[in-house]
Amino acid sequence: MSSPPDIKALLDRNKSQIQTFSSKPLLSEAKAAGTIPPSVIVITCCDIRVDPVEFLHLKAASDAVILRNVGGRVGPLVNDIVALDVFIGMKEIMVVHHTDCGTTHYSDQMIREVVNARVPGSVGQDGTFGAIEDLEQSVRDDVDILKHSPLVRTELAEHTHGFIFDIESGLVKAVQTYSQDPALVQIRVLIEDMKR
Amino acid sequence: MSSPPDIKALLDRNKSQIQTFSSKPLLSEAKAAGTIPPSVIVITCCDIRVDPVEFLHLKAASDAVILRNVGGRVGPLVNDIVALDVFIGMKEIMVVHHTDCGTTHYSDQMIREVVNARVPGSVGQDGTFGAIEDLEQSVRDDVDILKHSPLVRTELAEHTHGFIFDIESGLVKAVQTYSQDPALVQIRVLIEDMKR
Repeated sequence: MSSPPDIKALLDRNKSQIQTFSSKPLLSEAKAAGTIPPSVIVITCCDIRVDPVEFLHLKAASDAVILRNVGGRVGPLVNDIVALDVFIGMKEIMVVHHTDCGTTHYSDQMIREVVNARVPGSVGQDGTFGAIEDLEQSVRDDVDILKHSPLVRTELAEHTHGFIFDIESGLVKAVQTYSQDPALVQIRVLIEDMKR
Repeated sequence: MSSPPDIKALLDRNKSQIQTFSSKPLLSEAKAAGTIPPSVIVITCCDIRVDPVEFLHLKAASDAVILRNVGGRVGPLVNDIVALDVFIGMKEIMVVHHTDCGTTHYSDQMIREVVNARVPGSVGQDGTFGAIEDLEQSVRDDVDILKHSPLVRTELAEHTHGFIFDIESGLVKAVQTYSQDPALVQIRVLIEDMKR
């Protein structure tokens, strides 16, 4: 099996595609031409098996804005969502976690231990690394972050929906989130009370 | 001009591609098969004109792990990089900002004012939204974050490089970063002293 490309190889590929590269319009040109921007933000994992262009069958780059981090976790992306909404204006958000995610195979504590073994005290107990214990729960929690953030425009938060992408079937399945079922909020509060 | 697809349309597209979807291997299966993971992390902007698959001519998903946020800013992605490195093991990082980036057309202060006009006091003076004043500087600063983070493995930080993608020519150009030129670090310290 061949090795994956290094940066040098990727830069060589960049040079080789210059000849066929089609220039992108400047923002000012796109605006002057009345180009309609995407209206959906897709937040998903950086896992190489999880490609929104494939699983949402995106036909054009303008079909969606794609934010990708480890797990597709919303927490570190709230300010990005706000910036996109203020600057471009967005209408809906899809939070898409996926089956067999790497984040379900480690815990934040495991990563903290590795990092602190290298540089003692470099990460505190509150350091998180996107770890997911329960996939549906993580989707619910992440959608919840947007619904309750004072920074996110209310109408956009209300149009945020949670999903799980099944890497085996290819299906994107909706997850019932707290706001869709007020009883779930109550159950969650009860469970969290029991944990204390 | 037609409107961009909404979530409902994207879910319809997902359903329509199920028939031709090829199942992805589970992590355990990939590991058992001795599959070699990607070795490069590409950090870049979520701008629809900036597609690393296109500008780095990625031939397979396994060519690189792609992290995307507003501007391709490293700050909110440090823990993601650590998680990827501990869980998979990474060799190099490319930080790729781009010309005509939306982040160069607004300031963090502009976004703070919009958000605080909606919900007074919801974002403080330290709230940042990825705004970039000087493109080369932002690349240098972001590479610098990794070089100086106690969380990032030293060898990986040393193999972090900064680039600017030109949306008109398609070229990815290297940016000389602080660590490559110690004199730049000195100049920066002097400039920051002068600002005080």
